[in-house]
Amino acid sequence: MVKIIALKTHDIRFPTTLDATGSDAVNFGDYSAAATYLTTDDSSLKGYGMTFTNGRGTEVVCACINALSSWVIGRELEEITANFGKFWHKLVSDDSLRWIGPEKGVIHLATASIFNAIWDLWARKEGKPVWRLVADFTPEQLVSTIDFSWIADVITPEEAIQLLKDSSVGKAGRIEDAINNDAVPIYSTTAGWLGYTDEVMVNLLHEDLANGHVNFKFKVGQDLAEDKRRLSLARKIIGDKTLMIDANQVWDVNVAIEWVKELAEFKPWFIEEPTSPDDCVGHKTIRDALKPYGIAVATGEMAQNRVIWKQLFQLGAIDIAQVDACRLGGLNEVLSVLLMAKKFGVQVCPHSGGVGLPELTQHVATIDYVVFSGKKSMLEYIGHLHENFYDPALVENGYVITPKVPGYSVQFKEESLATYEYPNGSFWTSEAAKPIVNKKPPLKFI
Amino acid sequence: MVKIIALKTHDIRFPTTLDATGSDAVNFGDYSAAATYLTTDDSSLKGYGMTFTNGRGTEVVCACINALSSWVIGRELEEITANFGKFWHKLVSDDSLRWIGPEKGVIHLATASIFNAIWDLWARKEGKPVWRLVADFTPEQLVSTIDFSWIADVITPEEAIQLLKDSSVGKAGRIEDAINNDAVPIYSTTAGWLGYTDEVMVNLLHEDLANGHVNFKFKVGQDLAEDKRRLSLARKIIGDKTLMIDANQVWDVNVAIEWVKELAEFKPWFIEEPTSPDDCVGHKTIRDALKPYGIAVATGEMAQNRVIWKQLFQLGAIDIAQVDACRLGGLNEVLSVLLMAKKFGVQVCPHSGGVGLPELTQHVATIDYVVFSGKKSMLEYIGHLHENFYDPALVENGYVITPKVPGYSVQFKEESLATYEYPNGSFWTSEAAKPIVNKKPPLKFI
Repeated sequence: MVKIIALKTHDIRFPTTLDATGSDAVNFGDYSAAATYLTTDDSSLKGYGMTFTNGRGTEVVCACINALSSWVIGRELEEITANFGKFWHKLVSDDSLRWIGPEKGVIHLATASIFNAIWDLWARKEGKPVWRLVADFTPEQLVSTIDFSWIADVITPEEAIQLLKDSSVGKAGRIEDAINNDAVPIYSTTAGWLGYTDEVMVNLLHEDLANGHVNFKFKVGQDLAEDKRRLSLARKIIGDKTLMIDANQVWDVNVAIEWVKELAEFKPWFIEEPTSPDDCVGHKTIRDALKPYGIAVATGEMAQNRVIWKQLFQLGAIDIAQVDACRLGGLNEVLSVLLMAKKFGVQVCPHSGGVGLPELTQHVATIDYVVFSGKKSMLEYIGHLHENFYDPALVENGYVITPKVPGYSVQFKEESLATYEYPNGSFWTSEAAKPIVNKKPPLKFI
Repeated sequence: MVKIIALKTHDIRFPTTLDATGSDAVNFGDYSAAATYLTTDDSSLKGYGMTFTNGRGTEVVCACINALSSWVIGRELEEITANFGKFWHKLVSDDSLRWIGPEKGVIHLATASIFNAIWDLWARKEGKPVWRLVADFTPEQLVSTIDFSWIADVITPEEAIQLLKDSSVGKAGRIEDAINNDAVPIYSTTAGWLGYTDEVMVNLLHEDLANGHVNFKFKVGQDLAEDKRRLSLARKIIGDKTLMIDANQVWDVNVAIEWVKELAEFKPWFIEEPTSPDDCVGHKTIRDALKPYGIAVATGEMAQNRVIWKQLFQLGAIDIAQVDACRLGGLNEVLSVLLMAKKFGVQVCPHSGGVGLPELTQHVATIDYVVFSGKKSMLEYIGHLHENFYDPALVENGYVITPKVPGYSVQFKEESLATYEYPNGSFWTSEAAKPIVNKKPPLKFI
């Protein structure tokens, strides 16, 4: 038995606003993590989790992790994992704290950080990477990690067990694929940021092509003429390789339809986040309108919980499910979405990028291939900030190098913590941080 | 011109868990407020806002208000109110902070606290209660306070102006009704809490009847046999007066339908919050199934933003819109929901109770009657904690006594702050607070 004896949060921020990495039609932040580190009564066994944030506000998520911490401190790991789905349900149903959610936004990001740390701890104890821990579950074990409340009208635990039994055909071969780094193809958003100059974009595209990339995503939505110019330039460089576009929620439903029609000439595979992440009905309207143009609809990085996912699936609102490893309440809830995606036949391409997300989603995408869909899908990959982790996400020949080290891959290096922990790390107390720390909202807002 | 020069948050908690006030199928907390107090360069003019919370977690909302505070400190009130909808949009679109929302949960509760304080400040400056400030707007002025992004596919500003012009017929008479305390009938949840003994419930019902109440709501959903027993007892006392039931989200969709059918014999007007507040499609399914039984569906206290409301209306998912004055991002967004409710012909009965909500919703319900629907609806009323406000919500003869004092009615008395501010108020440092402060989640969770 392993008892969790302490929980510590870390607010870690990387100054990505300084070079416009991560700039899109609505987001412009410093890639950050609200990390949860668990200590146990076995000094050789710790758990490292995080949720991805975007600079300011990370301290709010850390405050919320602390508010939830009494649920795990003093508890035995085996007591949690023996009824993992039930424990998850109890925590998200905290009779006071649910009021500030429930199961959405800050409190669900905090929940993700805690549960990702518990999965890391469990996997380290078992000596397996998280994807392999899950791949080795029986259908009954896997289903016991999921909370079916509020989704039981579309899938029951019994139905889930049967579905997993059916999916287990060929699983041994898929585990071999994963071990051989042949499970998860990737696509690149490295060159696609709105804040990059043409020169930066072109150079990064050539670099990606040289590294064997064949799928590319570009941010759109701030200026239609500019979008056409950039996509035209990009098409010249990537030829007929796969091109995707991403509006990061900037449009109303009607605007989304008209704008994307204007970009149809560049033959995007999908439009990502065309409108509000909460608008299931709106995504259905957009999908129906774009079907004649052969353009698919993708969303998910801000789909707040399994109830939104359920409705996206029920309504037939999307073609691609971009599940996020931190937006949902940890891997437990991610598994419920992979399950529903399988049932409704929707392709899963996890949302990634930022900091730490690629480290987490390489496990998620591998689990989807090995355990659920049985089909190779595609994972977003962006080539920065990996050097801050002991077990970084790596790619080769357009595929993920499947993680082999026990855990969930998001333990930060000690030197990264010392440099980037906010507000006392050496970067944040330096002169270089001043433009970020002193930034204020504009006094003129129109 | 009035410049906002400082923002201070207050975490104020009332120990309602000690007597089970506020206990339902899923919530059991200490009624609390995350309050925003604005100071201006005119020492006679301050703004007092709050959002309602439920004990633990209030500190997280206060941290989030502080994270947003740079948007208002140093800004002139007139600059904000001249383009109020646009300013609201800019703040909720903060390029870093939107990541931890957007527009939901903690960050939207924090947004509510700030915008409610700005409305209070504006109304005090104009020397009017908030409902009257809004009632005196031209249609164009009112529409300028609303952010139409993400709802423009169901209502445009132009359409809204026309709708308000049409609704202005008879407005002068309805303002007179409001002044004469003849605008907003109420219903009572005072006796309806699950944690109350039969004796407490019966006594409170008799008290309500003696005070002229004719509409009563009861919590259900923990135990079917117990629900039947309590509703049967309640029916004996209230006779054929209006009875409503409230499950506070505890059921899955299918369970909700079966459970409520079992309670049909008690002839409830509506079932409130039968399932997840995020499940628009689920509410539609439940509404369709209960229609043959003559039972309406109500929800809204946790409908997180105007996008969820839009879908509830588009799908025809509800009969009653229980808009909340704090869950949405302040009165600006509440007005957008009243507007959509009018367009879709759905009755508005604001969610109230807790602490401070009745003080705020008396304005909201009055605005709905005077400006939007033109029809008398019904406001929830619960008779506790009003003594903590300088301008408390009062009722008489089953009607709201319309607020007459300038502002938005949620300035706490100094002595209430001194007693209940957490963690340093005199109650919270006393022996009586120990059972609450030392409470931990149960070690056995199943």
